[in-house]
Amino acid sequence: MQKVLMKDALCMEGGQGESSYIKNSQVQEILDKVQLPRRPGKHLLTAADLGCSCGHNTLIVADAIVEHMTSKLRSSSFEDQDDGDAADPEFCFYFCDLPSNDFNTFFHLLPQHATAAAGNGSGRRYFAAAVPGSSFHNRLFPRQSIDVFTSTFSLHWLSQVPEGVADNRSAAYNKDKVFVHGASQATGAAYRRQFQSDMARFLRCRAMELKPEGVMFLVCLGRPSQAGPTNQGRVQLLCGAMFEESRGDLVEEGTIGREMMDSFNVPVYDPTLEELREAVDVDGSFQINRLELVITSSLAVDDPKDRRAVGRTVANYVRSLLGPLVDAHVGRAVADEIFVRMRRRAEALAEELVDEMRFPHIVCSLSLDRVMKIRAYRLCYMRTTGCILRGSTFSALGGNVLFHYERAKMFGPTMQ
Amino acid sequence: MQKVLMKDALCMEGGQGESSYIKNSQVQEILDKVQLPRRPGKHLLTAADLGCSCGHNTLIVADAIVEHMTSKLRSSSFEDQDDGDAADPEFCFYFCDLPSNDFNTFFHLLPQHATAAAGNGSGRRYFAAAVPGSSFHNRLFPRQSIDVFTSTFSLHWLSQVPEGVADNRSAAYNKDKVFVHGASQATGAAYRRQFQSDMARFLRCRAMELKPEGVMFLVCLGRPSQAGPTNQGRVQLLCGAMFEESRGDLVEEGTIGREMMDSFNVPVYDPTLEELREAVDVDGSFQINRLELVITSSLAVDDPKDRRAVGRTVANYVRSLLGPLVDAHVGRAVADEIFVRMRRRAEALAEELVDEMRFPHIVCSLSLDRVMKIRAYRLCYMRTTGCILRGSTFSALGGNVLFHYERAKMFGPTMQ
Repeated sequence: MQKVLMKDALCMEGGQGESSYIKNSQVQEILDKVQLPRRPGKHLLTAADLGCSCGHNTLIVADAIVEHMTSKLRSSSFEDQDDGDAADPEFCFYFCDLPSNDFNTFFHLLPQHATAAAGNGSGRRYFAAAVPGSSFHNRLFPRQSIDVFTSTFSLHWLSQVPEGVADNRSAAYNKDKVFVHGASQATGAAYRRQFQSDMARFLRCRAMELKPEGVMFLVCLGRPSQAGPTNQGRVQLLCGAMFEESRGDLVEEGTIGREMMDSFNVPVYDPTLEELREAVDVDGSFQINRLELVITSSLAVDDPKDRRAVGRTVANYVRSLLGPLVDAHVGRAVADEIFVRMRRRAEALAEELVDEMRFPHIVCSLSLDRVMKIRAYRLCYMRTTGCILRGSTFSALGGNVLFHYERAKMFGPTMQ
Repeated sequence: MQKVLMKDALCMEGGQGESSYIKNSQVQEILDKVQLPRRPGKHLLTAADLGCSCGHNTLIVADAIVEHMTSKLRSSSFEDQDDGDAADPEFCFYFCDLPSNDFNTFFHLLPQHATAAAGNGSGRRYFAAAVPGSSFHNRLFPRQSIDVFTSTFSLHWLSQVPEGVADNRSAAYNKDKVFVHGASQATGAAYRRQFQSDMARFLRCRAMELKPEGVMFLVCLGRPSQAGPTNQGRVQLLCGAMFEESRGDLVEEGTIGREMMDSFNVPVYDPTLEELREAVDVDGSFQINRLELVITSSLAVDDPKDRRAVGRTVANYVRSLLGPLVDAHVGRAVADEIFVRMRRRAEALAEELVDEMRFPHIVCSLSLDRVMKIRAYRLCYMRTTGCILRGSTFSALGGNVLFHYERAKMFGPTMQ
C-alpha cells in the first residue's frame, strides 16, 4: 500500500504556491472553540472521523486532534491550578465508515497500544474504536457523547442516487449519463434536493450526538457560487465526459447493454458555499465559524509533458473513485476496458488536464449554537427518532459509494 | 459459514441432561446487579464483549444483555414515575478482540441499522463499535465507562508463553511438549504464575473501566479443584497427547526439525475456582456473586459409533483451536499432515473420546466492591499507568492465540 502524506491527499499542494486549506493553524482554530470541562478530576475527550477509510491519513488527523486538545486541556488546567488529573485527560477516538470499509486493514495500521506518552511515534494516545455505520445520515453515537467531529472528502457523496434519475419515466431521468455534471436542469434539481435532504439528516444527527460545546470540521468537494447544479466545474466535466464517452464506446460496440448503462449513476454532488450555508441555517443547531472554497493546485504528475503518464494518472484517479462501483455494475473485465479507453482519452487531452485538474474544496467548521441548542435538540430528537424507526433508504448502490470513494483518499491523484 | 446456536457453542448440551450454565436466568441474575441511573432524563448504558470473535454468538449475547437491561430500566422508571425519557435508554455495545480478528466479517453479520424497536430481528437496539485491542490485559476503555463486561472462552488464553517454557536452559522448559497438560511441575508453576499475572492485569484494567456499579460475567475453561496445574483434565490430556504424538511422528520422520518443535508452545491454562478466587481477592476491587465449575455433556457427534466421524470431529475441533498457530509455525502442508495423523489417532480412541470429551467451565460473575472501590481505584491507577507506559509483553505467538481460539467459538466441537 502506498503511503501518502496528508498534505498530498488533502491539500494537493503543488507548483501554484500556498493552497493548504487544512494547515495546522486552521485545525487548531476550530479545535480551540471546543469548551473544555471546568470541573476538577479526570477528563474524557472524544472525537470521531466520519468516513475514515482505511489509510494513514486518518491516523494523522486523529493524532493532530488528540495532540492539540490534550495540550489545550493541560495548559488551561495549569492556568487554573496545579490540577494533575486534568493535565492527564483520556481520549477516545472513533473511526467511522460503512461496514464495507476494510477495517481489518485499518486495524493493522493502528498502533496497537494506547499510551499516555506524547507523540513518540510508537503508540497512540487515545482509546480507539471503529463504528461501522449504515450511513452517517443516520445516528451513529449516543446523545451528547462527542467533542469533535471531523469528515474529509465524504459529504459530497449522497446517500442514494436521487429519485427519478435512473427512471426513464421521470423528468429527472439522466439519459446516457452517469454524473450530474452536464445533465439536464431537472436532473440537477433532483441531485440538489437529495443533497439538501442528506445534509439535513447529517446535521440533525450530529447535533444530537455532539456535546453541548462540541465542534465539527468538514471538508468536501464543492463548486463555485455562480455555477448551477449541473456545472460542477471544468475538471468534473472533463473527467465525467471522458468516462461517459468511454462507456458509450462499449455500448455502441454491444459490449454493454443499453439498459445496464441506464441504471448506473454516481451519487456525487459538489455543493456551493451557499447550499451548505442554507442547510446549516435550516437545521438551526449550528453556528458557522468558517466556510470557504479553496481551489487546489493543478494535477500532480512527475512529468506533465509525458502524455502517457498524465493519461494513466487521470484514469487511475477516476478509477480509484469509481472503480468498485463500475466493477460491480459491469464486471471487472468490462470495467478494465472502459478505463483503458478513458486512459487514451486522457492522453489526448493531457495538456488541458494538467492545467485544469484543480479541485475546489469546501472547508467548513461549525459549532453548536448554544442559544438554539435546547430548541433544536428537542426538535431533532423527534425527527431523528422517526428517521431511525423508518430505517435508511440508503440504496444498494449508495451503500457502497462512500467506501469506494474513500479509497481515493489514500491514493489521491498521484496514484500510479 | 456454519451458523451455530449459542447453546451449542457455549453449553454443549447433550444426552447428559441439563448442563446449561449460561441459561437466561443466570445472565439475568448478574445483570440485575447493575445499579441503574436514578436521575431523570435520557440514559446511556454500555456493555463490552472481550474476545468477541466474529460469529453469531456474540450478537446473541449482545441482544440478550441489551434487551434485559433495557427492560429493567423501563420497569424501574415506571415504578418511579412516568419518566418517558428513562424508559427509552440508549445502549452502546463494544465488541473487542485482537486486531487480527476478522472484524470485516463480523461487521457484515451485524445488523446495519440501530433501531429503538424491540427484538424484531431486523435491526439492533444499540450503537455498535469495535475495539481492536492488543490484549485485554491492557486498558481498552476510558475510566468508568462500562456498565457490563462479558467474556466467554477467552480468559484461559494467557498473554504469552510463560517465561522459561521454551528455553532449554530453564527448569520450566517444556521439552517435547506444547501444552501444560502432563508437563513437569516447574512448567506447571510457570503457567500458573503467568495466569495469576494476567488475571491481575485483567482485573486491574476492568476495575478502572467499569462504572461504579458495573458487573462482569465471565466464562472460561477450568479444571477441578483437586487437580494440579499440569493436570488440566482427561480430555485436555487426551487431545494434547494426540496432537503431541502426531507432531512427534513428523519429527521422527525428519519432516519437522527438532528446534522448530521446541519453540512451539500453546499458552492456555485452565484455572481452578480457587485460583480465580485468589486473583480476585488479591486485586481487591470486586466481590464475587457467582463462581462455579460446570462439567459439560459429552462429545456432540451425530453417530458416536462411527469412528471416522468421531476422529474427524475431534481433529477438526483441535484444529479449530490451534490450526492457525500450527500453520504459522510449520506451514500449511505440514500442519495438514499433523492433523491427518491426529484424526487417525482419534479414530482409534473413538469410544473413549466420545465418553471423555467433557469440558469443565468456570462461570463467574463479579461486581465492583463499593467499599473497596475508592482505595482500589487509586492503587489501580498507579499500577496500570505504569503497565501502559511499559507496553505489553504480548509475544508474537501470544498475540494471535486469542483470535485463533476465538474462531473455535463459532464452530464448537460439532464442526465438520
